[in-house]
Amino acid sequence: MTAKQTRKRLDPEVRSEIILSAALRLFAERHFATVAMRDIAEACQINVALIYYYYESKDELLRRALGHAIAELQAGYDVVAHADPVEGLAAYFRMHVPIAPMLVRMVKIMADYAASNIRDAPTDRLIREFYAAEQKFLEDSLRRGVDRGVFLPVDVPQTARAFSLQLDGIFYASQARGDERIAQDIENLCSRLASPALLVKP
Amino acid sequence: MTAKQTRKRLDPEVRSEIILSAALRLFAERHFATVAMRDIAEACQINVALIYYYYESKDELLRRALGHAIAELQAGYDVVAHADPVEGLAAYFRMHVPIAPMLVRMVKIMADYAASNIRDAPTDRLIREFYAAEQKFLEDSLRRGVDRGVFLPVDVPQTARAFSLQLDGIFYASQARGDERIAQDIENLCSRLASPALLVKP
Repeated sequence: MTAKQTRKRLDPEVRSEIILSAALRLFAERHFATVAMRDIAEACQINVALIYYYYESKDELLRRALGHAIAELQAGYDVVAHADPVEGLAAYFRMHVPIAPMLVRMVKIMADYAASNIRDAPTDRLIREFYAAEQKFLEDSLRRGVDRGVFLPVDVPQTARAFSLQLDGIFYASQARGDERIAQDIENLCSRLASPALLVKP
Repeated sequence: MTAKQTRKRLDPEVRSEIILSAALRLFAERHFATVAMRDIAEACQINVALIYYYYESKDELLRRALGHAIAELQAGYDVVAHADPVEGLAAYFRMHVPIAPMLVRMVKIMADYAASNIRDAPTDRLIREFYAAEQKFLEDSLRRGVDRGVFLPVDVPQTARAFSLQLDGIFYASQARGDERIAQDIENLCSRLASPALLVKP
């Protein structure tokens, strides 16, 4: 069987995932504005026409690549939304570790997009809604903890914001500093859930 | 007096600062690899040869632009190094606010540089030394606070790392989320110095 035959057999869903993943990698390595559909096709070893079969434009591919990473995180909200607040927040933080390489790319692409002069309303909405959903998840978990007497009556929006910024900082720094400390930094963040600033002593 | 005459009168130090500042802005807006010396010359309304009079290459300009931003922060270490640890740390955090636009650019350029395949040993060293110096300043301040009985005996390297990542997160997020909350986020960070996780109650 030749490589070509193998590729032809790919399920459309698998194929579109491979394209998304190549796009995410290329967009993150270079600036997305400098990546052509042809570059993504080459990285997937397919004809550029096949990419257009799945994605109508590079803008759509950018949104779908970001959306894919965001969806992985948001799946976590549902899983842990009704858990014990301490466990739920720790589980959400730790969920970032196995998908860290994808999140590092997402963080990079969002920075490039924001710094560029390119504005695409659906992409703007996607990013805004992602951060709003994260803030809401963190606030809900903290508020539930305060209501149950697990957490001290902290400033909930401010604490949620600090957690969210810490996550951004961890993924930004992992690339900018190149020190590969994500797992350790996430555990450091988890330990704040048990800090005397937040947790009611038993 | 024409504009040209005005430009001719510029002091070399002022001129080199203008070039650095334009380079920092252009490198941050686009990827530095896509910015030509000619683009920077145009932004400064000068001849490209004049840039080469001050900076021998784009690599040097990148290093000097980053170094300029880093120097502003490091000047702060000396100012606050011997102050009361709580006041010193708060002063260091607040020092970021007036120079925020420059720091947002620095954070963006460091991300682009790290994500690229371009490696320049002096730039690597500059970035590594910046974060090492920040970590050391934060650790020294925290340790002095612990020794004086102002701070609880926290894990000093871990707490310093968390502060440093929060700063990265604040500047990353300011651009990626476009929500212009730097001053508020810095005050939020300052408030952690008085948190029961850190400060010994009087």
